[in-house]
Amino acid sequence: MDFSLGELAVKFGCDLVGDPKTRISFSSTLISAKQGDLSFYSNVFYLKQLESTAASAVVIKPSDLKHCPVDALLTDDPHIIFSKIVALLNPLPTFEPSIDASASISKKAIISNSAFVGALCFIGDGVKIGENVYIGPGCIIDGHIKIGSNSRLIANVTVVNKVAIGKETMIHPGSVIGSDGFGNMKTEKGWLKIHQIGGVKIGNDVEIGSNTTIDRGSLDDTEIHDGVRLDNQIQIGHNVCIGEHTAVAASAAIAGSAIIGKRCMIAGQVGLVGHIEICDDVRINGGSVVTKSIKKPGVYSGSFAADEDKVWKKLVAKIRRL
Amino acid sequence: MDFSLGELAVKFGCDLVGDPKTRISFSSTLISAKQGDLSFYSNVFYLKQLESTAASAVVIKPSDLKHCPVDALLTDDPHIIFSKIVALLNPLPTFEPSIDASASISKKAIISNSAFVGALCFIGDGVKIGENVYIGPGCIIDGHIKIGSNSRLIANVTVVNKVAIGKETMIHPGSVIGSDGFGNMKTEKGWLKIHQIGGVKIGNDVEIGSNTTIDRGSLDDTEIHDGVRLDNQIQIGHNVCIGEHTAVAASAAIAGSAIIGKRCMIAGQVGLVGHIEICDDVRINGGSVVTKSIKKPGVYSGSFAADEDKVWKKLVAKIRRL
Amino acid sequence: MDFSLGELAVKFGCDLVGDPKTRISFSSTLISAKQGDLSFYSNVFYLKQLESTAASAVVIKPSDLKHCPVDALLTDDPHIIFSKIVALLNPLPTFEPSIDASASISKKAIISNSAFVGALCFIGDGVKIGENVYIGPGCIIDGHIKIGSNSRLIANVTVVNKVAIGKETMIHPGSVIGSDGFGNMKTEKGWLKIHQIGGVKIGNDVEIGSNTTIDRGSLDDTEIHDGVRLDNQIQIGHNVCIGEHTAVAASAAIAGSAIIGKRCMIAGQVGLVGHIEICDDVRINGGSVVTKSIKKPGVYSGSFAADEDKVWKKLVAKIRRL
Repeated sequence: MDFSLGELAVKFGCDLVGDPKTRISFSSTLISAKQGDLSFYSNVFYLKQLESTAASAVVIKPSDLKHCPVDALLTDDPHIIFSKIVALLNPLPTFEPSIDASASISKKAIISNSAFVGALCFIGDGVKIGENVYIGPGCIIDGHIKIGSNSRLIANVTVVNKVAIGKETMIHPGSVIGSDGFGNMKTEKGWLKIHQIGGVKIGNDVEIGSNTTIDRGSLDDTEIHDGVRLDNQIQIGHNVCIGEHTAVAASAAIAGSAIIGKRCMIAGQVGLVGHIEICDDVRINGGSVVTKSIKKPGVYSGSFAADEDKVWKKLVAKIRRL
Repeated sequence: MDFSLGELAVKFGCDLVGDPKTRISFSSTLISAKQGDLSFYSNVFYLKQLESTAASAVVIKPSDLKHCPVDALLTDDPHIIFSKIVALLNPLPTFEPSIDASASISKKAIISNSAFVGALCFIGDGVKIGENVYIGPGCIIDGHIKIGSNSRLIANVTVVNKVAIGKETMIHPGSVIGSDGFGNMKTEKGWLKIHQIGGVKIGNDVEIGSNTTIDRGSLDDTEIHDGVRLDNQIQIGHNVCIGEHTAVAASAAIAGSAIIGKRCMIAGQVGLVGHIEICDDVRINGGSVVTKSIKKPGVYSGSFAADEDKVWKKLVAKIRRL
Repeated sequence: MDFSLGELAVKFGCDLVGDPKTRISFSSTLISAKQGDLSFYSNVFYLKQLESTAASAVVIKPSDLKHCPVDALLTDDPHIIFSKIVALLNPLPTFEPSIDASASISKKAIISNSAFVGALCFIGDGVKIGENVYIGPGCIIDGHIKIGSNSRLIANVTVVNKVAIGKETMIHPGSVIGSDGFGNMKTEKGWLKIHQIGGVKIGNDVEIGSNTTIDRGSLDDTEIHDGVRLDNQIQIGHNVCIGEHTAVAASAAIAGSAIIGKRCMIAGQVGLVGHIEICDDVRINGGSVVTKSIKKPGVYSGSFAADEDKVWKKLVAKIRRL
């Protein structure tokens, strides 16, 4: 897919400096850009790359235009406009509705005529797959699972037991949705498994990264609300509830029954203990361990920055002597 | 499956307050319960939910009966009795012994007539699958693998190389058992791979969560003993040994050759360095990094609770000035 | 495969003490060794095991020979020589070039005649698989993927989008290479997905553990250079670059655009924030959170060792009072 610079200027409301007929077919960083590529500039750190870029055009602020050696699209928000152009130039892959002959499909499954089911997928009894849904190769969908229209499971995603997935939601490879939570009761003979019978409800416009796990609820459901973004390798325990538009970065672990508000930002490797409540608009910095409910919006931290080992060891020794 | 309240009272030795003919077909939380549901109450935090519950009956302590608006099963241990009733009402799914036509089965594999092998499974040479074993869809079993009777691999589990799994053991999707440990030797030309030739021994009544990894031993085996419970996204290095009835919560990482005793409880995101020994009956709190052997039963900690960022930064600054 | 002790002595340049005709067919630890096994000794911690070993021979330093009750191969580097003999006795499994009938192969894929593609693999359009490549059962290779000669994907590996894998590289089960990075832009309506269009470049002689995730770049590629070793459950964000011969242990998380030098050693559960640079020859100890670039080779730390809970809580209370 390609566009003229003039078409892009009109479509995104930018002023154009240069030739409106310039063809743009690819988006790139300043340093990697070639003829036909569009790039963007918004950070002075990359000034030298701007001055020597081989891009055909750059999305840039009016105040930075003087440094730009090539055609330009002017806007106050170069990163947002550039991202929108990237999406335009690189739409999600299209697909022909079809069910691959190598897939194993239950006769009791209901699959929309406009859906795609890829090679070597398993679709079990009681699965309902909505319009324009894309189920990539190797996915296992086994249980009372409902997948809303326009959602995409990229490849090798496992969804089991009782899961409702909304519309326009995307799940990346290796993720496991709906498996048993960690429910065990101590007895004299050892651990007694607490049978998990809840499900998982995932909203619309959710994105779930690779190798992330979301457990089914113990009795009620685990809930991931509309617009949530989950990165890779995240663990979501049973009966967790994550509010709208909250984003969680990689390798975070949210223990059972934690309730997280709306528009929160939880950084990488953060741990939340179970049964606590985080209010809306909380940001938690990387590596923090959150052990108590947070009732006030704001930024929270709890990790130390690594230091030279000698310096760190001296510091730890001083602390131990307090 | 459903039962009368009278049957449940007899079966679990509870006193019954109300109508023994009340039908119970589902188990639920106080707040979600509907007609026909059983719920339980043991924590004053949920008193309001108890007082307004729509459950048909509640499992409850005699001393709390006065707050209960519906029929009741009386016991000193509401959570345990309730969990047992949940298991009774929601038994593990039954299956017809069979091998799905889409599975790929080696002629050299030995599969019990009472076992189930689901769609799109691969069962390689030398695999032995015992009585009443359930291998859900998409599992890959490739190597000298033995799976004991009544064990269940839910779906998309990968077991490779040399692994013996006991009886009544359950493994959730995305887990990988038996792959190479991280064995590398530094040489002038870079890293030399140390070929891993050990296996994994997993006992009876073990449960392994989703996307957990258990490496084969370097020379001898990695061992997970009877009754162990592993949550999701746990990493178990080569030659680790985990003693009976120890439970490990999500996202913990146990480095190679660590030996963990019996009945330990290791919380989420805990890290254990390699080659250390943890005695029986040790509890380690969330996010701790354990760097030395622990020789005394008890509770161990090593993480800081997150705080408001300003407060935390001030504290860190003070510490740095020590 | 088996060898005489004499052959091994010649092959690895060791002096031999004992019978050169002794047959060696297996490698083992001192304590597990049986007749026909070779073991090694280099750590006084195992002296008692040496003195009572049932191995047929032991690789050992000349200075330790006096404690050795059986035949010996003498060398200054017992562990390296032993590891090389382990590799000789236990070569990677061989395979007959073939494509399993249950695999689903695109007509537009190019697969070398000497490659192996196992059961239930999916190989999509535009995939190129080189000479002697081994693709184990259940792998999903979907996109513009190139796999160099002699590389091995053990089983159930997912590679998507745009990925170039070098020669002699090994990837263990459950790993996901090339899926979208975590790119989101805040807007008034919630998160706007930043379409990810970069790829992943993986060098030669790389090893990637189980359930590790490596995201495609946002615009340019994510890069893993020659000789890198990645353990299990590691997260590598978009546009990360890892230099030659760097090793990363399990459960580490490297955020987007971090640049890591050559020959670094990053321990388990380490977290690196995005957009920082780590120079060559840096070692980072377990559980550290690295928030700033590191410009000087050396050892870095940032985690506390766990302690008895009472001791730890007192210490934390004192710190809070600073």
